[in-house]
Amino acid sequence: MSIFSNFSPLLATTEAENAPIVLTGVLLSLVVIYLASKIGGELSKKLDLPPVLGELVGGVIIGASALHLLVFPEGGAVASDSLVMQLLEKINNLNPEAINQIFASQSEAVSILSELGVIILLFEIGLESDLRELQKVGYQAAIVAVVGVIAPFAAGTIGLILLFHVPTIPAIFAGAALTATSIGITSKVLSELGYLKSREGQIIVGAAVIDDVLGIIVLAVVASLAKTGEIDVMNLIYLIISASVFLLGSIFLGQFFNQSFVTISDKLQTRGQLVIPALIFAFLMAFLANAIHLEAILGAFAAGLVLDETDKRKELDKQIIPIADILVPIFFVTVGAKTDLSVLNPFIVENREGLIIATFLIVVAIIGKTITGWSVSGKEQLNRLAIGFGMIPRGEVGLVFAGIGSASGVLDKPLEAAIIVMVIITTFIAPPLLRFAFKNPAKQLTTDSN
Amino acid sequence: MSIFSNFSPLLATTEAENAPIVLTGVLLSLVVIYLASKIGGELSKKLDLPPVLGELVGGVIIGASALHLLVFPEGGAVASDSLVMQLLEKINNLNPEAINQIFASQSEAVSILSELGVIILLFEIGLESDLRELQKVGYQAAIVAVVGVIAPFAAGTIGLILLFHVPTIPAIFAGAALTATSIGITSKVLSELGYLKSREGQIIVGAAVIDDVLGIIVLAVVASLAKTGEIDVMNLIYLIISASVFLLGSIFLGQFFNQSFVTISDKLQTRGQLVIPALIFAFLMAFLANAIHLEAILGAFAAGLVLDETDKRKELDKQIIPIADILVPIFFVTVGAKTDLSVLNPFIVENREGLIIATFLIVVAIIGKTITGWSVSGKEQLNRLAIGFGMIPRGEVGLVFAGIGSASGVLDKPLEAAIIVMVIITTFIAPPLLRFAFKNPAKQLTTDSN
Repeated sequence: MSIFSNFSPLLATTEAENAPIVLTGVLLSLVVIYLASKIGGELSKKLDLPPVLGELVGGVIIGASALHLLVFPEGGAVASDSLVMQLLEKINNLNPEAINQIFASQSEAVSILSELGVIILLFEIGLESDLRELQKVGYQAAIVAVVGVIAPFAAGTIGLILLFHVPTIPAIFAGAALTATSIGITSKVLSELGYLKSREGQIIVGAAVIDDVLGIIVLAVVASLAKTGEIDVMNLIYLIISASVFLLGSIFLGQFFNQSFVTISDKLQTRGQLVIPALIFAFLMAFLANAIHLEAILGAFAAGLVLDETDKRKELDKQIIPIADILVPIFFVTVGAKTDLSVLNPFIVENREGLIIATFLIVVAIIGKTITGWSVSGKEQLNRLAIGFGMIPRGEVGLVFAGIGSASGVLDKPLEAAIIVMVIITTFIAPPLLRFAFKNPAKQLTTDSN
Repeated sequence: MSIFSNFSPLLATTEAENAPIVLTGVLLSLVVIYLASKIGGELSKKLDLPPVLGELVGGVIIGASALHLLVFPEGGAVASDSLVMQLLEKINNLNPEAINQIFASQSEAVSILSELGVIILLFEIGLESDLRELQKVGYQAAIVAVVGVIAPFAAGTIGLILLFHVPTIPAIFAGAALTATSIGITSKVLSELGYLKSREGQIIVGAAVIDDVLGIIVLAVVASLAKTGEIDVMNLIYLIISASVFLLGSIFLGQFFNQSFVTISDKLQTRGQLVIPALIFAFLMAFLANAIHLEAILGAFAAGLVLDETDKRKELDKQIIPIADILVPIFFVTVGAKTDLSVLNPFIVENREGLIIATFLIVVAIIGKTITGWSVSGKEQLNRLAIGFGMIPRGEVGLVFAGIGSASGVLDKPLEAAIIVMVIITTFIAPPLLRFAFKNPAKQLTTDSN
């Protein structure tokens, strides 16, 4: 105890002195992050792949796997591993202790920015998810979503336990990561192909919306399981109930709150009259979710869903875009940078199990979603292959699982890297598969496509 | 040394475990900050005062002076002083050591967000400052700006040294804080009164633009003086030259860079194609300014000036608005929250000197700017009182001085609080004074007012 109390004042003094250098480090890190996200995103787009894939790969390249421009203490890195820190050390003539402290502070600041990024992302996904869209394709979309969650989750978790002897909790976490569907990637690809308004397109989008909700409940459940370290059935029930009650309850209460949000925003006359009340609501919901031991992003998503139902939706959406543009890439690049892909180097013998796991996850991820097309009821002629392929990309939400699993220490490095490789491959493979399904013979089976 | 190395792994583990709680703390702090900024800003607007004044007062109310919702270790506060930390402690059953660490991390994260806020603010001011606007009223505006910098700086610094025996460096810092003019407040008030396009209005805006540039050079010079701790004439010359070369050089080089920025942005096809390259440029310039030992905000301001000259200006301006809306209030509220106004309590005997200093600064601040109206050359009939009154509000830039002076430890608490009170009073008094000067007899002297 006396060490701590003697130590604190010294720590405080040094921190105040180093504050401008921490800011310099954060600024340089942001420049590197933005460059990686833009170069990666644009190259990805040029190759006709989703930009988010490029941002992730950009992060991998500047991170622990390759250039070491952006590394984090959680990954076992020290200040001298970071090229940014080496540069700061040279500019400011720092001693090793100061540079270690600056490294810790800077990494923490970038991590907080990245977490704010994923909160804004889920808020934006909530704003873009339209509950009414869903009601049109209702039952069919729900079946696709539920099958697309249960099949890969069950096959993935059981397979990892039985075939690879992975402990139960990491296996459940990896299985859960297989359940997500990236609504952003799917709807963007559909729109580019001109099939967004087709019946298949509507079912895919509807199912992806439901999947977002299910995925976030699954995430909240497994993340809390990861925290307590064991499967407590009462806890499981508590979590499912609290996640459902929180999400459905906030949507229900949101109907009444909606109008007062619009009224308040209309009355405000100073700058930020729309975006600041919206963020107060989103951050408050994120805080509340955290306070009842769910994930912060669940609250942000619920806030987005609630505000999506107001007249202000379009205006808010427009204002959130630049905010998301500057914060969300920090999340994707950071996830990539924290991933050490060297554990998947096939030339190192110990890595081979990780690689086999990755291959297994990829196969489960693709088959588990593709079969959902045949779960659709009704006698109408549908392009079932396209529906299944449309559900494949894991995108943002899959990465959220990997990020939270890594932060909570549940996933060991090979399994975490295997999940990220699975996310990359499914995200990578979905656009060409979807194009194949729509443009080829199966197209003749399509009804109502306009 | 062995204490440090034994200590680090423990520290790292605890930090990783506490990470979600740090995020919870940051989210709750942001909710509190946004509520304070909006309530303060709106009330201020209702009272016909500039919103920024209300944000600052909102910060004072939630901060160290009153509610203790947002306090910082630099001000001598510990975790148990913070109501937010007390709440987190209850929710998560934390021990005192964990809560102290979370308090430090959370405070650092909020500080970094606030510093990013002021960087974005100066970038935005740069974007709004129009070099061409200036050329029209050219010479007259320049005289007003230069007199408005020299008169209060000289009177303030010399007065503090001779009358109050303040040491030279803090006296220079306080004098420098008297030089700023808030272009935002001034131009907003002029536009509300309908005098923005009058000759007086143009001179005020032009002078405020030049004052922004001069103020930032002055700030860079005094902040660097504060760092080295003494007045080194060679260093002074180096700083004036490097600040001028940096600012003018980047504007000059910017003319050539401008077009490639537009070309690059036009070629990009993924989200954030305009705002991300702009922020890469702004953050890189801020980093470079820091690396040559100037202030980061000087770089951000120069980046704004350069990008203001492109075709993308309007679009960029529109996209920066929501980003500024969510980051800039964090800066103003944090400045207010860090100010402990209790040092100005007149019932405590030791405080009285601080109060007398504040009164002195306010008098110098008002007179030093008011006289600038009579420095305008030319025989035309001008509302000289209005010009002088228009230069009075210190606003954002004055607060930047107080914030940096506080962070670098140059200003003692009474002097820092005196500067903030001066900024509040000048910001508070300018709109009614300006209205008085324009609406009353002096108006008959106005020429060319439309």
